Amino acid sequence: MNEATLTLEGWYALHDFRTIDWTAWKAADDEERAGALEELHTFLNEWIQMEESKTGSTAVYSIVGQKADIVFMHLRESLEELNAIETAFNKTTFAEYTTKAYSYVSVVELSNYLASGGGDPKANPEVMARLQPILPKSNHICFYPMNKKRELSDNWYMLSMDERREMMRSHGLIGRSYAGKVKQIITGSVGFDDWEWGVTLFSDDALQFKKLVYEMRFDEVSARFGEFGAFYVGNLLNNERLDEMLKL
Amino acid sequence: MNEATLTLEGWYALHDFRTIDWTAWKAADDEERAGALEELHTFLNEWIQMEESKTGSTAVYSIVGQKADIVFMHLRESLEELNAIETAFNKTTFAEYTTKAYSYVSVVELSNYLASGGGDPKANPEVMARLQPILPKSNHICFYPMNKKRELSDNWYMLSMDERREMMRSHGLIGRSYAGKVKQIITGSVGFDDWEWGVTLFSDDALQFKKLVYEMRFDEVSARFGEFGAFYVGNLLNNERLDEMLKL
Amino acid sequence: MNEATLTLEGWYALHDFRTIDWTAWKAADDEERAGALEELHTFLNEWIQMEESKTGSTAVYSIVGQKADIVFMHLRESLEELNAIETAFNKTTFAEYTTKAYSYVSVVELSNYLASGGGDPKANPEVMARLQPILPKSNHICFYPMNKKRELSDNWYMLSMDERREMMRSHGLIGRSYAGKVKQIITGSVGFDDWEWGVTLFSDDALQFKKLVYEMRFDEVSARFGEFGAFYVGNLLNNERLDEMLKL
Amino acid sequence: MNEATLTLEGWYALHDFRTIDWTAWKAADDEERAGALEELHTFLNEWIQMEESKTGSTAVYSIVGQKADIVFMHLRESLEELNAIETAFNKTTFAEYTTKAYSYVSVVELSNYLASGGGDPKANPEVMARLQPILPKSNHICFYPMNKKRELSDNWYMLSMDERREMMRSHGLIGRSYAGKVKQIITGSVGFDDWEWGVTLFSDDALQFKKLVYEMRFDEVSARFGEFGAFYVGNLLNNERLDEMLKL
Amino acid sequence: MNEATLTLEGWYALHDFRTIDWTAWKAADDEERAGALEELHTFLNEWIQMEESKTGSTAVYSIVGQKADIVFMHLRESLEELNAIETAFNKTTFAEYTTKAYSYVSVVELSNYLASGGGDPKANPEVMARLQPILPKSNHICFYPMNKKRELSDNWYMLSMDERREMMRSHGLIGRSYAGKVKQIITGSVGFDDWEWGVTLFSDDALQFKKLVYEMRFDEVSARFGEFGAFYVGNLLNNERLDEMLKL
Repeated sequence: MNEATLTLEGWYALHDFRTIDWTAWKAADDEERAGALEELHTFLNEWIQMEESKTGSTAVYSIVGQKADIVFMHLRESLEELNAIETAFNKTTFAEYTTKAYSYVSVVELSNYLASGGGDPKANPEVMARLQPILPKSNHICFYPMNKKRELSDNWYMLSMDERREMMRSHGLIGRSYAGKVKQIITGSVGFDDWEWGVTLFSDDALQFKKLVYEMRFDEVSARFGEFGAFYVGNLLNNERLDEMLKL
Repeated sequence: MNEATLTLEGWYALHDFRTIDWTAWKAADDEERAGALEELHTFLNEWIQMEESKTGSTAVYSIVGQKADIVFMHLRESLEELNAIETAFNKTTFAEYTTKAYSYVSVVELSNYLASGGGDPKANPEVMARLQPILPKSNHICFYPMNKKRELSDNWYMLSMDERREMMRSHGLIGRSYAGKVKQIITGSVGFDDWEWGVTLFSDDALQFKKLVYEMRFDEVSARFGEFGAFYVGNLLNNERLDEMLKL
Repeated sequence: MNEATLTLEGWYALHDFRTIDWTAWKAADDEERAGALEELHTFLNEWIQMEESKTGSTAVYSIVGQKADIVFMHLRESLEELNAIETAFNKTTFAEYTTKAYSYVSVVELSNYLASGGGDPKANPEVMARLQPILPKSNHICFYPMNKKRELSDNWYMLSMDERREMMRSHGLIGRSYAGKVKQIITGSVGFDDWEWGVTLFSDDALQFKKLVYEMRFDEVSARFGEFGAFYVGNLLNNERLDEMLKL
Repeated sequence: MNEATLTLEGWYALHDFRTIDWTAWKAADDEERAGALEELHTFLNEWIQMEESKTGSTAVYSIVGQKADIVFMHLRESLEELNAIETAFNKTTFAEYTTKAYSYVSVVELSNYLASGGGDPKANPEVMARLQPILPKSNHICFYPMNKKRELSDNWYMLSMDERREMMRSHGLIGRSYAGKVKQIITGSVGFDDWEWGVTLFSDDALQFKKLVYEMRFDEVSARFGEFGAFYVGNLLNNERLDEMLKL
Repeated sequence: MNEATLTLEGWYALHDFRTIDWTAWKAADDEERAGALEELHTFLNEWIQMEESKTGSTAVYSIVGQKADIVFMHLRESLEELNAIETAFNKTTFAEYTTKAYSYVSVVELSNYLASGGGDPKANPEVMARLQPILPKSNHICFYPMNKKRELSDNWYMLSMDERREMMRSHGLIGRSYAGKVKQIITGSVGFDDWEWGVTLFSDDALQFKKLVYEMRFDEVSARFGEFGAFYVGNLLNNERLDEMLKL
């Protein structure tokens, strides 16, 4: 059985990081700003309805530091839908007051190392709930992309399936010890974006991100084979907080 | 027999990624936009005719995420023709509403590892069809550039021809197992652009990109020797979808 | 006992580096500039009061060279507060005359290698003073982010706890030999930003930064395992110096 | 005899890559464009005269892809002359319609590995013709900068002179097998620019660039020790083609 | 005796590279340009006086290629003075016609490997002349930053003091063989900027930069341990040449 067929994929994901052009936002008149906000709320409401219809999910967080001001994390059934959301957003008035900061294209993935016994996993409601997850509304988000290294003697892809499975099992144990504290969504991006995986963490306590990622770093699978991109951390933006953020 | 003379080259390729300046596009008046679109459709039609005359081929896809909005993938008989297309596009009104995102210059290539028996391969219509391919109109495109590593003990170019041929054979078998699901076009860019090869995949099911690339990554030729650049993934843009994308 | 639970965290930190747009600042009229400065001083005063109430601390320094003109280093009790400071600053008139240069998100951290005996360390006022430090008003600041390497045989995270503790102890001895000359604040950024730690040094004599960092570089923990990002060095900006800097 | 004194240097070289700002060029009125073109042709004519007087040489090519639109490759007797050309060009009206894309500063170099017998090599007209070459007017140009690696066991600069000479000899044989097809000009940039050498190739058939560079890549000196920067490929721009390129 | 205390430091250094915005410079009217030039000359004169008073030194060179147009290399007694020069320059009218290209912050340093016998080296006028040097007015400048490598078995900082001293001695011999041809100023930037050292070379013959740096590259200390940043090369700008450069 080959490696690829053991992986299960669910909804496609687009992490869309935007920076607010505050000078332009302040230069706009009240009416323009009100119109832009109304349009933005229309989108947010559509996304909530989408979530209620279980055909997708969207999370909105502010980002701390200069890398971005807002991230929209969209889960949808197809790349076409993600593309349509992007384009629709780009056509809004609000988008004129933002610049692009970073984006990530991937698909929700369940690892082949955790594959259960027999039967069609997609017939299992628990599996489906993990493949098509409704994103938590936790206080905090953490996102980072990552690779498995292929560097001389530290080459993940030259290990045997057994070696990899054993390391991933130990890795999973750490993750599970944070159950209830950190919710983790793994998205695969091989063939879609510049890193192999995206990791999105949700928690009501941002310190748990640090503790989880740091503890895992001593695990052989991270210590020897993990290669990490930029980290983004942020705070939940519900409607009121978004309005407050944008209020002058 | 040296390495280079065993490679067959066909049409030259230009992957031209563009980002739409939505603020400017929205600020244009209806007439300007209509004129820009008309000009763009004239180009698209010329490219279709080019394809019908079998002197080249062009594919147009949207790109998901912030890296770009559109890619034009052009295959033509010479670098001069590719240059002329670029320049002509840059002179259009539509181009004023775009910015450059990324480009890649290469040439369609058949690997020397797959060389068949005797005779002039260019007299073989099947070979010519692969060297001068009409680009598929699949739902999805995936593009990434790559190198073969030259890092200490993982140095592709220090292997013997036999070692390389054997690894490429195994690699090809994976590719062939996706026949009917993924169409793959390899372009060589040694001497033309910053990576050694460009890989362009077409499929009606974007997940197949992930499965194919992931499966190959465990193959020694990728695991030890593959070095990958940025990945771009997108959706087919026919005339109607392009109009819809640009409609305000 | 796992690695992560041995680390103590205090206030969250945001290093916010900004560049002044001198052309715009000079093009503004006197009234605009006066208004912008007044608003800026209001912020500075709020930050001083914050410090007096022991719920946070802020340091303001100019930066030498083109990387930035000013750094605001904020320590606060939560990521939400840091985010609110950022957003409030972005809404000021003064911010219109600046561009973003760099930022760093982290949290004050006491290393697990220095863990003392029993008891709840957070009940210890000395520990708390280090976790929630009032930033010095030394003449100079030095900031740089860093990682511990994970490169083949130089892999910090594959060492035993004992090996790491021993090396950190020797490292700490060098640091302590600069007591009274350099004040060092370590912030952890695993899960928060692109490097694992941020190091912020304060001294009345900038040469001490060079001597300290250079001496440490020969220490095995830095020599074999230290990976360093960009270095920023600057001069204290009190109210008068800030006014002088911005006076035309 | 040390390494450096065995190298012969000729004319200084500036590769000056520029991108055309098509939106601005189109927004200019006919008179402005005509004036800009006239000024540009004055320069081109001066450069042709310079070449006739054998005190320098200039080649002008378009570049395929988004990296640049035009490259001016200037060979002159001194860095001051190259600087003067740059500054004069920057003051032209045409330059207002371009942005800087990339540049490279180097000096024509004959390798110390090919040193002939006795006598003053600079008294040899053949040597001088190679040190002060009139640039070919071939259909195509290819430029890339490169280093010799210094990476652990693959360290060119730790090899003995004999080892290096032997490898360079084999390398030179490949180059010579392309005689009549590809003209190669090596410029040294140690102390002048970010890479150690610049390689500029000229050919009437662009495929020869690919074949030459690919064949060399299997040669130990490239395979183990070559480190390559960005590749630029382009088409000859004579006066008519330049006018056509810029005609709206 | 530790490593750091053996190093002697003199004046602080700021290399300030600027690019001229020619389009803006040409768009200015004669009066603006004349005013900007007058202000610039006032600065240049102040810097000359500073040099005569032996409290600092400034060199002004043009840079060849697109990396920058001008470099101001300032040596002063403190980081505060360097910061003040920067800020004062940024407030000039001339600065409005420039953009920032690169900067480097460091301090003149005499290596601990060359330490002489007993006594206070700072009482030695020769030593002080090297720590507080008046910058030469040679025809050419070359600047590059560098590190000593810490890569697995090529780790400078894991060598013994004796090994390092021996290699530096051989390195110094090459440098000394260029005495009279190349003047070299080493500045240390550990704790101040992104590389460990800055090397600034002055010569009336630019080729000597190439020969010196190339010859050193075969020396073990460079071959195995040298890591180099960008190289900048330029021509002396005295008052007349500066006026000529900026004259339209």
